[in-house]
Amino acid sequence: MSAFTVLREEGHARRAVYATAHGDIHTPVFMNVATQAAMKGGLAACDLRRAGCSVVLANAYHLHLRPGEDTVRSMGGLHGFMRWSGPMLTDSGGFQVYSLAGRRKITDEGAEFASHIDGARVFIGPRESVRIQTALGADIIMAFDECVESTASREVVQSASERTLRWLDCCIDEHGRAGQGARALWGINQGGVYEDIRADNLLRLQERGLPGVAIGGLAVGEEKAAMYHILDILCPLLHKHIPRYLMGVGTPEDILQAVSRGIDFFDCVLPARNGRHGHLYTRKGKINIKNARYRLDENPIDEQCGCEVCALYTRAYLRHLFTCGELLALRLGAYHNLYYYNSLMAQIRQNLENGTFNAFRKAMTECWTSGP
Amino acid sequence: MSAFTVLREEGHARRAVYATAHGDIHTPVFMNVATQAAMKGGLAACDLRRAGCSVVLANAYHLHLRPGEDTVRSMGGLHGFMRWSGPMLTDSGGFQVYSLAGRRKITDEGAEFASHIDGARVFIGPRESVRIQTALGADIIMAFDECVESTASREVVQSASERTLRWLDCCIDEHGRAGQGARALWGINQGGVYEDIRADNLLRLQERGLPGVAIGGLAVGEEKAAMYHILDILCPLLHKHIPRYLMGVGTPEDILQAVSRGIDFFDCVLPARNGRHGHLYTRKGKINIKNARYRLDENPIDEQCGCEVCALYTRAYLRHLFTCGELLALRLGAYHNLYYYNSLMAQIRQNLENGTFNAFRKAMTECWTSGP
Repeated sequence: MSAFTVLREEGHARRAVYATAHGDIHTPVFMNVATQAAMKGGLAACDLRRAGCSVVLANAYHLHLRPGEDTVRSMGGLHGFMRWSGPMLTDSGGFQVYSLAGRRKITDEGAEFASHIDGARVFIGPRESVRIQTALGADIIMAFDECVESTASREVVQSASERTLRWLDCCIDEHGRAGQGARALWGINQGGVYEDIRADNLLRLQERGLPGVAIGGLAVGEEKAAMYHILDILCPLLHKHIPRYLMGVGTPEDILQAVSRGIDFFDCVLPARNGRHGHLYTRKGKINIKNARYRLDENPIDEQCGCEVCALYTRAYLRHLFTCGELLALRLGAYHNLYYYNSLMAQIRQNLENGTFNAFRKAMTECWTSGP
Repeated sequence: MSAFTVLREEGHARRAVYATAHGDIHTPVFMNVATQAAMKGGLAACDLRRAGCSVVLANAYHLHLRPGEDTVRSMGGLHGFMRWSGPMLTDSGGFQVYSLAGRRKITDEGAEFASHIDGARVFIGPRESVRIQTALGADIIMAFDECVESTASREVVQSASERTLRWLDCCIDEHGRAGQGARALWGINQGGVYEDIRADNLLRLQERGLPGVAIGGLAVGEEKAAMYHILDILCPLLHKHIPRYLMGVGTPEDILQAVSRGIDFFDCVLPARNGRHGHLYTRKGKINIKNARYRLDENPIDEQCGCEVCALYTRAYLRHLFTCGELLALRLGAYHNLYYYNSLMAQIRQNLENGTFNAFRKAMTECWTSGP
């Protein structure tokens, strides 16, 4: 029996459920990012639950450097360490190595790089990444991939794509040695914006028969149209019986577009980061709460929002907190935005169940375009 | 009928209750400081309630500058603005003016100073302070006083003490004009470390028949022994039927010492500030959670503490959060420390009820001295 069950389809979009040892994940889903086993903005695991989060994502690279996977394992793994009892996914560190451009050297064995914290030399390859993630103890772990700039040449992208596949086989081997247990290893598709490299990479990746596939190396600077085009290319090739995860995406509109192309899993630092900067989501688009127009505004951020911030606080109070640089501002901003994202996903799931997703997507896009 | 009822005494220490329009305050009490209508460390009003806080203190000076008392008033006053439904006290701004040394000019009318935010010229005198505090809407408002350095000469202290009394009469007059309602105006005793000035000032202050008296200008750099000595001098002179508030104090030991001398109200930024720096209170004194010895420590901060942080998180996780600079560290540290202070006050009240306060004070002091 597969862990993934598609319940309903509308066009390419799917309403599904993915079973893990820490509970079922109802998809499409937005994973809330707790890079260092903590959500930015001062949110705790209990806040995430209240904000409608069902999957937490943490990062192997950051946790390897601090506090180290052995420390996390000895504290009961990520679940025990940060006190999150629901499903978790860890990213492999491939993307973080990519973002260390100029401070890293990549060979067929893996990546040697200078730690962003103290400059210490660190080596992570596919086997190391799987070992780190196994120690961290997430339900879903990601293969170690080589991500490249969206502007990279065909040769560079082809080479990284091939290496990603070779590394994938090392990850599969290491994962088998670790004793798979309830932990799922998902592969990552690469290939930049080159249709044929993407397609070839995906077909060969899917030959490995893994329980999930991620699309990496998008939303790294290319045009939106290029990202959607690659999704259009990959969509008919994706196996239907496993979940698809579009890494690092994105805006609410990106998510609706990607769901309509068949994506099930998302993650992005955007809502929490926007929240910390006072850019708060409403049904009618983002508002900048620091704007003087909200000085005497007695309304909540969004009067139709069901979150605690909107239940309790006026825009005037939130503006005051941001103006004064109070930490409470960052917390309330991040909380509201994550609630917004998680709530958007719940609405997407509900509309897929009702067969009204396409109409919902159009209505939302119009609403956002009309402005706050 | 007085708002203040002494329920029990042990030596000079008192277990009492002070009635306000937003509920009874059980004393001795530690007021939790929300200077800008927000608690530092990212705590919200609902957290304060759970942390055992019963009175919130905010500051007229800061709120006058940002967002302005008219904004706060139009949002339902401080209670509505920050969503705290319990008793509140505002400080008058006298102490903040004192801390702007070199950027202020004090005359008999009040203090003209440069805003710490943008350097703009601002004037606050006794009448302005009462008007600001009336607009903010706290249950207890403080007279505008002139605080001086603890090293100041006798002449300077004498002059400031006389001015504080003249300003007090302006405050009383302005408070009468505002229509007193349920809002209590408390006076502030000054006089530095000069016994006779302190005593004279207190006697004349108490002649005004106000419903509460504060002792200001202590804990501003003088020796601890000097502070305790002044309390010893004032203690027999203090009217018994009104509450006494020792401003800006202090450490847990200071509080026990002052309670034993008859003090009822306290406030201090120390617990929240220590919490944000990772200096966390335990029954056996403070620990620095950033210390490497806690790297693999599976215990809570204090296993006998009843707070949520101690119920959920290991020292190892808290150390990790502080090491990484996660905002959650500041929030959990501040929360635990405020819980500790509020819980200490609850224990003090319980021991006063049982007639065991003196024994409790000695046992606590020994416990702290033994070290963690």
